[in-house]
Amino acid sequence: MASIITTGELTHVAIGDFHTEAGATLPNVTIAYQAWGNYTGDNLILVEHALTGDSNVAEWWADMLGPGKALDTNTYCIVCTNALGGCKGSTGPSSPDPTGTPWGSRFPALSVRDLVDVEKQFLSTLGITKVHAVLGGSMGGARALEWSLMHPTMLRGALVMAVSARASAWQIGIQTAQIDAIEQDPNWHGGDYYATEAPLRGLAAARRIAHLTYRGELEIDERFGTDPQQGENPLGTHRSSTQRFAVQSYLEHQGLKLTKRFDAGSYVTLTEALNRHDIGRGRGGLNKALGASTVPTMIAGVDTDILYPYHQQEHLSRNLGNLIAMAKISSPVGHDAFLTESRQVDRIIRRFLLLVNQEIEDDRLFLHHKEN
Amino acid sequence: MASIITTGELTHVAIGDFHTEAGATLPNVTIAYQAWGNYTGDNLILVEHALTGDSNVAEWWADMLGPGKALDTNTYCIVCTNALGGCKGSTGPSSPDPTGTPWGSRFPALSVRDLVDVEKQFLSTLGITKVHAVLGGSMGGARALEWSLMHPTMLRGALVMAVSARASAWQIGIQTAQIDAIEQDPNWHGGDYYATEAPLRGLAAARRIAHLTYRGELEIDERFGTDPQQGENPLGTHRSSTQRFAVQSYLEHQGLKLTKRFDAGSYVTLTEALNRHDIGRGRGGLNKALGASTVPTMIAGVDTDILYPYHQQEHLSRNLGNLIAMAKISSPVGHDAFLTESRQVDRIIRRFLLLVNQEIEDDRLFLHHKEN
Repeated sequence: MASIITTGELTHVAIGDFHTEAGATLPNVTIAYQAWGNYTGDNLILVEHALTGDSNVAEWWADMLGPGKALDTNTYCIVCTNALGGCKGSTGPSSPDPTGTPWGSRFPALSVRDLVDVEKQFLSTLGITKVHAVLGGSMGGARALEWSLMHPTMLRGALVMAVSARASAWQIGIQTAQIDAIEQDPNWHGGDYYATEAPLRGLAAARRIAHLTYRGELEIDERFGTDPQQGENPLGTHRSSTQRFAVQSYLEHQGLKLTKRFDAGSYVTLTEALNRHDIGRGRGGLNKALGASTVPTMIAGVDTDILYPYHQQEHLSRNLGNLIAMAKISSPVGHDAFLTESRQVDRIIRRFLLLVNQEIEDDRLFLHHKEN
Repeated sequence: MASIITTGELTHVAIGDFHTEAGATLPNVTIAYQAWGNYTGDNLILVEHALTGDSNVAEWWADMLGPGKALDTNTYCIVCTNALGGCKGSTGPSSPDPTGTPWGSRFPALSVRDLVDVEKQFLSTLGITKVHAVLGGSMGGARALEWSLMHPTMLRGALVMAVSARASAWQIGIQTAQIDAIEQDPNWHGGDYYATEAPLRGLAAARRIAHLTYRGELEIDERFGTDPQQGENPLGTHRSSTQRFAVQSYLEHQGLKLTKRFDAGSYVTLTEALNRHDIGRGRGGLNKALGASTVPTMIAGVDTDILYPYHQQEHLSRNLGNLIAMAKISSPVGHDAFLTESRQVDRIIRRFLLLVNQEIEDDRLFLHHKEN
C-alpha cells in the first residue's frame, strides 16, 4: 500500500529531478500535499487548486470536503498537491537551488503539462498508480483536463470547471499585463529579489487587474457602485490617491492581501503556465486532442465568467470524446463562482461522482456479460 | 451669425475662465475645434469624441462624415471640440498656466459635466445657442447624455452610444488600475514631468489594459490565438520578454502607438472624468435623472462590449424620459465597434437624424394645428 498521510497535515515528498516540457531540468524537486480520508487503493480523488490556491482544500472548499459532503472523506481519499512553481511547500522560484541560493530568474518556465507531469511523478513516488477522479476549476480545471489527456488509463473520470481548451489571446493579454506590472516594480530585479525587498507593489497591482477578471461586473457593482470609501471624497477639486471610491479601496485591499500570502516569482511562473495552456499543442490541434479523449469527463462553467467565458466550456463539451455531463453555474459572481457558489458546486461534484461510478458499474456489468 | 470656421481646420478659441463642478477655477481656457459644412443657424451637430479621440471626425469617423454621408455636410454643420483636459489643442495638464509653467499636478480634476459645461461656454463664446443634435460613443456618449440632461432646451436630439448612466464599480476598478500603471512609472513625478522625461512606459501599460476592455475576446482570439510572434518562441525553457506571443507584441504596439500621440497627464485626467461619470449625482439618483429627460434620445450599444455591457444601454432605454429608438450593434469587436462597424453605425446615425427631424415636424404640425 502506498505511504500516503491522510491526516490533513502538510507533508513534503522528495520526488527527484524533474524535466520540463520545454527541456529544462529541476533537480531534487519537493512536492507538498495534504490528504484527507482513508486510502483504500482505488478511491483517490485528486483535487487541483487554482492559481494562488493551495493544498488546503479543507479551507478553500470547506463546504465540499468532509464526511458526508460532496468530497466525502468517509468514502474517498482526497489528495491535493501544491503546484510546482508555487510557494506553499512545493519547489518554486523562492526555493533554494542545490547551492542554497533561491532559484529566482533561473527557475524554468512551466506549462500546465509540467504541473500535471510532476504530480504524476509525485504519485509514482508514493506508489500510487490509479486515480479515481481528478477535478478542479480555473488553473485546477486546466490541470484536470491535461490529466485526462496525458494519463487517461490512470483515471476513471475528470471534472473540468471554469477553464478552456487553451489560453485565449485575451487571457494571454491580460495575464501578460499582470506579469508586466510585477516586472515594472523596481524591486523585481528580473526575479532575483529574494535577498532584498520583494516587489509587493507590483504583485498587488497584478492582483488588482486579475481580481477584475475573477469577479463579475454585476457583483462588484452591486456591492460598491460609485460609493466613496468611508471618510474619503473621490469627487474633490483635485484627484488624490487617498480620496478613493469604495471599489478602489476594495481592490487595493485585495492586492495587499495577496502580497501577504503569495510570492511574486510564483505568481509570474504560474501565470506564465496559464499562458502556455494549450491542449492542442503537439496533438494535431484542439479538436483532435479533445476528440481523442477517452476519460469520462464532465464540464462546468459560469454564466458570467469573463475570464473563461461560457462559450469556451461549450466548445470543450462539443468536442470532448467522452463527455458525460455539462453544467452551468448561474451566478453574478463571475469566474470565482466555482469557489463561492457552494450549493451549485456541491451538486455538480455529486453528479459527477455518481456518473463516474455508474460508468464503472456499467463497464463491470458489460465485462461480466461478455465473459459469460 | 456665429463666427464658426467650417473649413475643417483646427481652430483655437479663448473662452475665458472656467469653473469646475468640484469648485476649482481654470483661468483663460482655450478650446480647439474643427467644423465641416455650412452653418445656417439651426443645423449644428455636435460630435463628441472618445477618451483618446480628437476633433478630427473626418479621420476617425471617415465613413460617417462628408457630402451624402450619415453626417451629411451638405445639410449639417458638424462641430467637434477637443475635450478640456486633453492634449489636442484645448487646455489640459500639459498647457501652460498663467506663469507659463505646465499645469501638471495642479490641473483640476474634471467630471463629464465639466466637459459638457466648457463646451457650452465655447458655443456661447461663438454666439451659438441652438444645437440640432449631439452624438457620440463611449466618453463621447457620456457627454452626449449629460448634454441632454444639462441643457435640454438647447438640443433637439441626442444619440448616446456604448456608454452607461454612470461609471460601474468594475469600470472605476479597471480605470484606476490604468491610472495606477501611470503613477507607478518613475517618470510620472506626481504629474509634473513636462520639463523631464514623460512616463511613456506607464502610459503604454495603461493602454494595454484599456485595449483589452475595448476589444472583444472573440475578435482578439480570432486574430492571434496562441500564435507566437514571428521569429520569437514564447515556449522556451525560460520566460523572456523578448520571446512573445503574437498578442503580447500586438498589445505592446498598441501601447507604444498611444505614447506617440497622447499625453499621460491628459490620459489620467480624462480617465478620472469617466470615473466621475454619474448622471444621478445631485439629481435624486439615476432613474429619476433619466426619467426627467425631455430631449428625444436614441440609445445604441454593442452586443459584445465588456467595458459598457449592453445591459447598461438597456437600463438607459428602460428609464429615459423621451426614448426615440434603441439599436444594438452586432460585432465580435466589442466596445470599439462604435468606431469600426461603419455600416451599422451609418444606419444608426441616419435613423437617429430621421427620427429627430420627424419629431420636429410633428411638433410643428401640432403647434400649427393648435394655432388654427
